[in-house]
Amino acid sequence: MTALSSVSNPRVRQWRQLLAPKGRRAHGLFLAEGEHLAKEAVAAGAAETLLVLSGQEEAYAELARSAPEVVRVSPQVLSALTDSRTPQGVLAVCRLPAAGGLEAAGPRLAALNRLQDPGNVGAILRTLDAAAFDGLLVDAGCADPFSPKALRASMGAVFRVPVYACGDLPRALDALSGYDRVAGDLRGEPYYAHPPFGPRVCLLVGNEGAGLDADVLSRADFRLRLPIPGGAESLNAAVAAGLMIYDVLLSGENPPV
Amino acid sequence: MTALSSVSNPRVRQWRQLLAPKGRRAHGLFLAEGEHLAKEAVAAGAAETLLVLSGQEEAYAELARSAPEVVRVSPQVLSALTDSRTPQGVLAVCRLPAAGGLEAAGPRLAALNRLQDPGNVGAILRTLDAAAFDGLLVDAGCADPFSPKALRASMGAVFRVPVYACGDLPRALDALSGYDRVAGDLRGEPYYAHPPFGPRVCLLVGNEGAGLDADVLSRADFRLRLPIPGGAESLNAAVAAGLMIYDVLLSGENPPV
Repeated sequence: MTALSSVSNPRVRQWRQLLAPKGRRAHGLFLAEGEHLAKEAVAAGAAETLLVLSGQEEAYAELARSAPEVVRVSPQVLSALTDSRTPQGVLAVCRLPAAGGLEAAGPRLAALNRLQDPGNVGAILRTLDAAAFDGLLVDAGCADPFSPKALRASMGAVFRVPVYACGDLPRALDALSGYDRVAGDLRGEPYYAHPPFGPRVCLLVGNEGAGLDADVLSRADFRLRLPIPGGAESLNAAVAAGLMIYDVLLSGENPPV
Repeated sequence: MTALSSVSNPRVRQWRQLLAPKGRRAHGLFLAEGEHLAKEAVAAGAAETLLVLSGQEEAYAELARSAPEVVRVSPQVLSALTDSRTPQGVLAVCRLPAAGGLEAAGPRLAALNRLQDPGNVGAILRTLDAAAFDGLLVDAGCADPFSPKALRASMGAVFRVPVYACGDLPRALDALSGYDRVAGDLRGEPYYAHPPFGPRVCLLVGNEGAGLDADVLSRADFRLRLPIPGGAESLNAAVAAGLMIYDVLLSGENPPV
């Protein structure tokens, strides 16, 4: 097993760049930190290299057997590669998945417009994974689903739900053919009175403060407002998305109970 | 207008203690930071003192007119009283609300069992507020709903939804008379096949990793599992709570659409 103890080692310096979106894009890699995510990464075949903290080789021996490469690292190296205050002893360097073209996407999608909280982006991916949706579109203004915070919140959903980084969302929506585009919109029609959606649906979820951009809203086939009989002005974006995702799931064909 | 510029001023030192749960309990006060929360605090009559950053008096003049006391503070004082990296120029010192006894609680409640993420606790309060629920029970193992992080996530719901700090949750549930106690439980019966709940419902939401404690589960009248047809093992706690809260809202009498 290779061992790396210095943070100035060239491989470690490359991995450190994966803590920023630019570095992830440049290298086509991201870091999955902690036992749960590293296991998911290895199981999904996305892990290139498994980094195990020196002294914890036994604890992660089973996981290491399934990894293409295992590197033993010092505490200094591990903490240089994580934004967590109490890092676990394992971390996987993973290839960014290639979602492919949107034209081959499955029938149930969600699209995020400038969603800024990585916890919300991760929680929505987790809900899409739970509800067996087929993909997530993120625009250039969204928090990166492959950041450490979003990954933690997604609980590994990123290894199962295709993520389409589509830059300009209005253009991507124009290219989405045959989908009912359903906007969550505080100024929309009553949500639960909506007519049945078609078999292809793309839910549109907007920025935490400002909602959906006008040029995204203008592409919506449905503009719907979740009921808020109480005092709150709006719902948390991940909670609102969860209600919409489960409504699609439960009102579709063969709904689970 | 009083002005305070030194962090060693006795009032500032007392307010600093409000950043920790112990200090909040000891003084019966908490801090509502930023324009949105400070406005809600003043509107709810919960603000005792409004702290305005020196130089920003004009921006907050209207808000200040409705506050019982206004103190101008230095940037040093303001940043000593916030955990935010980019604090806004206003902060309200508020009285902890007295929720009163559970025996007088309204018909729709949720109870949190060792929920540890303050963002989840705040988001659930926000959803309860949106759905016009009547209160939230938190046990001794929960993140404090009055911490700065939970308050930010709650978006002011804490000023409208009564919070019952009940220490021992099983004992509180035993005392809740006439309520259907509905547990979110990954090993439960299919959620959406549940029979109609009675008019009094208390939803039970468990710890992010471990779920509900055995002595809480054993008090449940219904143990229900939200459908997860996809690859995720579970849902985010605030998303799961949101689905349960809105199910109660929509399946109750006179549901909003």
